[in-house]
Amino acid sequence: MKIVKVINNNTVSTVLDSKKEVILTGSGLGFKKRPGDAVDMEKVEKVYQRKDKLFARYEQIHKHIPPGYFQAAEEILTHAQKGLGASLSQQAVFALADHIAFAVERQLHKEPMPNLMLQEVRMLYPDEYQMGMYGKILVEQKTGVELPDDEAGYMALHIVNSKISENSVDAKNILALTGGIVELVKTGFGVNFDEADFNYNRLLTHLKFLAKRILKNESDQLSVMGDMLPAFLERDSRIGPVLEEIREFLLENFEYSITREEMAYLAMYLIRILKL
Amino acid sequence: MKIVKVINNNTVSTVLDSKKEVILTGSGLGFKKRPGDAVDMEKVEKVYQRKDKLFARYEQIHKHIPPGYFQAAEEILTHAQKGLGASLSQQAVFALADHIAFAVERQLHKEPMPNLMLQEVRMLYPDEYQMGMYGKILVEQKTGVELPDDEAGYMALHIVNSKISENSVDAKNILALTGGIVELVKTGFGVNFDEADFNYNRLLTHLKFLAKRILKNESDQLSVMGDMLPAFLERDSRIGPVLEEIREFLLENFEYSITREEMAYLAMYLIRILKL
Repeated sequence: MKIVKVINNNTVSTVLDSKKEVILTGSGLGFKKRPGDAVDMEKVEKVYQRKDKLFARYEQIHKHIPPGYFQAAEEILTHAQKGLGASLSQQAVFALADHIAFAVERQLHKEPMPNLMLQEVRMLYPDEYQMGMYGKILVEQKTGVELPDDEAGYMALHIVNSKISENSVDAKNILALTGGIVELVKTGFGVNFDEADFNYNRLLTHLKFLAKRILKNESDQLSVMGDMLPAFLERDSRIGPVLEEIREFLLENFEYSITREEMAYLAMYLIRILKL
Repeated sequence: MKIVKVINNNTVSTVLDSKKEVILTGSGLGFKKRPGDAVDMEKVEKVYQRKDKLFARYEQIHKHIPPGYFQAAEEILTHAQKGLGASLSQQAVFALADHIAFAVERQLHKEPMPNLMLQEVRMLYPDEYQMGMYGKILVEQKTGVELPDDEAGYMALHIVNSKISENSVDAKNILALTGGIVELVKTGFGVNFDEADFNYNRLLTHLKFLAKRILKNESDQLSVMGDMLPAFLERDSRIGPVLEEIREFLLENFEYSITREEMAYLAMYLIRILKL
């Protein structure tokens, strides 16, 4: 890096590779130097950068975020990165600090922002939700403000959103399980689904919850719907064979024996979605 | 603004109200000046600001995001702000641009990142999802890369996450409806729910989907579960009265006549959650 101008004995200016103009200060940094001489980097104490649009915007936005919130966001993300073994975008620290600042403000004004997906975050992204709860507690320690669980849910969503890739085995399994079942249904009934269809989305939500339970090795021991199974099977002769294929698919791929209760639920969703 | 140090005839340093150190240059700006003198603002030509760690990091991150993605993010958020009538945090433009950059990279490397909550976003935040689809199309126009719907879901989540307050009437109604029903169940059965309980979360998901349908004025015309209602009612004598209260609550507050089919579903969830 070369000196462009010697401003005084302790101050020089230079231009970075990125074409940004900077002023450097440090004791003796400009002493007996001329333009074109190399900057003695060891002497540099402070760097001042020409304020450009990006800098101005950065300031504008961040002016309102107390520095403590950046530390909190950083701690949450470091904790999440370790805990989840996931790569998170560095950008997240800004978005999360910003979110925390607004969340604290909302709480102080008693204007909470409910999270419509709190339950789904909790069930489908439980590890990220734990990190959100960690964040909620950290914010409380730092500010004395207790945030609602909805905000833990939002923090979890920030973590989900900042993932660079999905390497969670659980997520992959959930998708393999739901995708496999949807394929069996499509083939068995010779249908395609409209992605916007309400009942199709309900079926997928059901399958994801089922997958979660299967992956946690919790089978449904209640007996509420099981007795309905014969009546459901009578509604369409294709239901039985498709359920049988699903049973085999879960056994072979996930070593899971589907219960009669779960079969009845699946039958019910099939009847609904296919209007049988 | 007062001079802190005169560096040379054309250069002075000062400290802003925000405590940030800046160096100002301009012809004659330091000439015959002393510390404590006012800065002659008319002479200021360039502003150099002390580069803090956070800004350095910020710059580092933004170097990797092509400017076109900032424009795309900006367009999506402006569109969303108008379309939703919502206030969104300015910070979102960075997080969204960053997300788009990674999404395009993932797509080019054929390493998609599935969105486990795609269906729930689509059903619970349909307007935000529309904005996500707008973003998906915009990115395709700008880059020629077609992103999967999962990424439209992520963009929708960025919008949800960047809301400063929730002013959606729909969201408020969904929460009033689900909250009201949960209260009736708690009182009717004299119970409290464990927020982490699987069946409790399933009940809430069910109620939110029911709420969506009620608010769209779509009633469930299928007849799959209705016949089970008498058998369900027999399992516990409290079920009937609680369902009756829910029926009245929906009629009075949402002018909605619950169907026999929906009553049967509710009964089923109650049996499950209360292990009746």
